[in-house]
Amino acid sequence: MNKSFTPYNRILMGPGPSNVHPQVLKALSKPALGHLDPQFIELMDEIKSLLKYTFKTENEATFVLSGPGSLGMEACLVNLVQSGDKVIVCVGGYFANRMTQIVEKIGGHVVVVKETWGRAIDPQKLEDTLKQNPDAKVVAFVHAETSTGALSNIKTLAEIVHKFGALVIADTVTSLGAVEIQIDKWQIDASYSCSQKGLSCVAGMSPITFSPRAIDYIKNRKIPVQSWFNDLNLLLSYWNGPGKRAYHHTAPSNQFYGLHEALLLLKEEGIENSWRRHKENSVKLVSRLKDIGLEPLVPENERIPNLLTIKIPDGVDEAKIRMELLKKHNLEIGAGLGELAGKVWRIGLMGYNSNEKMIEFCVNSLKDVIG
Amino acid sequence: MNKSFTPYNRILMGPGPSNVHPQVLKALSKPALGHLDPQFIELMDEIKSLLKYTFKTENEATFVLSGPGSLGMEACLVNLVQSGDKVIVCVGGYFANRMTQIVEKIGGHVVVVKETWGRAIDPQKLEDTLKQNPDAKVVAFVHAETSTGALSNIKTLAEIVHKFGALVIADTVTSLGAVEIQIDKWQIDASYSCSQKGLSCVAGMSPITFSPRAIDYIKNRKIPVQSWFNDLNLLLSYWNGPGKRAYHHTAPSNQFYGLHEALLLLKEEGIENSWRRHKENSVKLVSRLKDIGLEPLVPENERIPNLLTIKIPDGVDEAKIRMELLKKHNLEIGAGLGELAGKVWRIGLMGYNSNEKMIEFCVNSLKDVIG
Repeated sequence: MNKSFTPYNRILMGPGPSNVHPQVLKALSKPALGHLDPQFIELMDEIKSLLKYTFKTENEATFVLSGPGSLGMEACLVNLVQSGDKVIVCVGGYFANRMTQIVEKIGGHVVVVKETWGRAIDPQKLEDTLKQNPDAKVVAFVHAETSTGALSNIKTLAEIVHKFGALVIADTVTSLGAVEIQIDKWQIDASYSCSQKGLSCVAGMSPITFSPRAIDYIKNRKIPVQSWFNDLNLLLSYWNGPGKRAYHHTAPSNQFYGLHEALLLLKEEGIENSWRRHKENSVKLVSRLKDIGLEPLVPENERIPNLLTIKIPDGVDEAKIRMELLKKHNLEIGAGLGELAGKVWRIGLMGYNSNEKMIEFCVNSLKDVIG
Repeated sequence: MNKSFTPYNRILMGPGPSNVHPQVLKALSKPALGHLDPQFIELMDEIKSLLKYTFKTENEATFVLSGPGSLGMEACLVNLVQSGDKVIVCVGGYFANRMTQIVEKIGGHVVVVKETWGRAIDPQKLEDTLKQNPDAKVVAFVHAETSTGALSNIKTLAEIVHKFGALVIADTVTSLGAVEIQIDKWQIDASYSCSQKGLSCVAGMSPITFSPRAIDYIKNRKIPVQSWFNDLNLLLSYWNGPGKRAYHHTAPSNQFYGLHEALLLLKEEGIENSWRRHKENSVKLVSRLKDIGLEPLVPENERIPNLLTIKIPDGVDEAKIRMELLKKHNLEIGAGLGELAGKVWRIGLMGYNSNEKMIEFCVNSLKDVIG
């Protein structure tokens, strides 16, 4: 209790956080800057620009929230949903379900498109629901459902939504940097992600982007945004300069250094190369897991490349295995969440960790512990 | 744009952030941990315990929010205020004014106790307002008003409130660690702070504490808390274990390492010694500033020891002076905010920076630049 904390050197192959790139860790220790320092404002501009590259967007309202991805989820919903609005949420897992809870807190009327946990959202189900609810103002879905390992086709989903005129919110927490995302081409109106996982940075920040259409909608809302911290009108006064930035909150300078470094590394690699690397390593990991008798839950063409859900073999005490992996190999993998608790493990192969060495380490450790 | 970011080595003597202790910077770079790792849960428990020491409280609901102090402000208000509630806010500066904006967003009915910017809240005014509004559910005030340099007597203010039965929220963003705070003795029902300033840690986290009375109130609210991220019912399921922690969000492990180290350093010094150090150095700084013709705005017995507002001498271009301090001496001091913009500078002498060397550096730099 009275001494400095020394974390174990864990290999983080759960659903996140994943291991942080050493250069990012180093960046965190640089001297702090004031949140209105001209040099810090330059850093913010660079982060904006790098996030535009990462999200594949020209949206001016692209920046990072000073809180984790869950705060980003709330920020998107609270700005685009007004009390009384009808909101369609496609739910095939824990995180989409969280969206429905937030919409309810805003006073929105939730209509759920229900999908089996472990499957991509069926576009036909969304289209049918929209036909029955053409007055829906917003449609929200999760790109890569962290709780199930299923990747939905958000390009197709967004196309369907736009036929009905609603705004599209896509959760890209687990996909950003690791799976193809095209915010502009696919006409996603708002999206939030996290700073860890595909970006190889520390947890605690939420990259976020809003289309001009979404901004326009927010500026013309009748009911004021019910959150102060997440009110985009206020946030944009701080982020969108130059020369006229208004104080909003004290930005976490050192976290921003880490994010900047992580985004630079991603750009250096080339984002398309990063997508390809995650895909290729995923295929290798699945093949090696099959070698030791472990089977993925999600059908091949619906799998998140950087987050696999693996069925727990009969008779195996899943919690015991995870604890042994942690103790014996310093390896963290994830438990199942919600409906899949006790039924799957979640193995992340993300960002800095998506490489052959980690695949071998993970498979060998599992083999050793399961026996 | 395409290279790693190297911040200047600024001396941060504005209203915050202040310079971070080197040991804290070092702690930030340690390997990340999962938010449900047994070792991380231990770290969370230690942080809780260290925060209880720092806040002088036994409140079980004492923990740290994964976002800056502004998020802490919103968290306290959104949990303790329900739509339609009458809320008294004592406003003598920018940050108390922000509280009124948040209460309005919640749908509360704000009654303002107005105080002159640069003065402590007059307890008599609060008592008079409570007599006229005995149905007020919550009274909120700022301990150390960062925008004006005025320190209010929150012990006296809280005593008055308790005669009327309302809940007390105190902003301790600028005071925690630097000025005496006694959450339990003074019967403060909820308080939030920040991780920088008096704690010498990086920005981005908000230590927070709720009394058992506040928790009881929250658990019996008729209207659900309108924020998901800040809903105390959910946050406490994650923070208050052991053995039954429910996932809430991915906690920023490396930020927590920094906070843990900062709180340890504070405990090592002894919090009473830290309060004394800030007070003594404040007296020295004021005396040295007077030597060069600079006068504090706030009367002596109402001054925040770690944040001085200094009147700008006639004929001085205040923005130019600040820019020259930054360029020539790498020294950041703060501008006035809100009503005091253009009228004062704000000089912070906080945490790691509260020492004689910094006093001399600041005074000599000011003397050099003002001429």
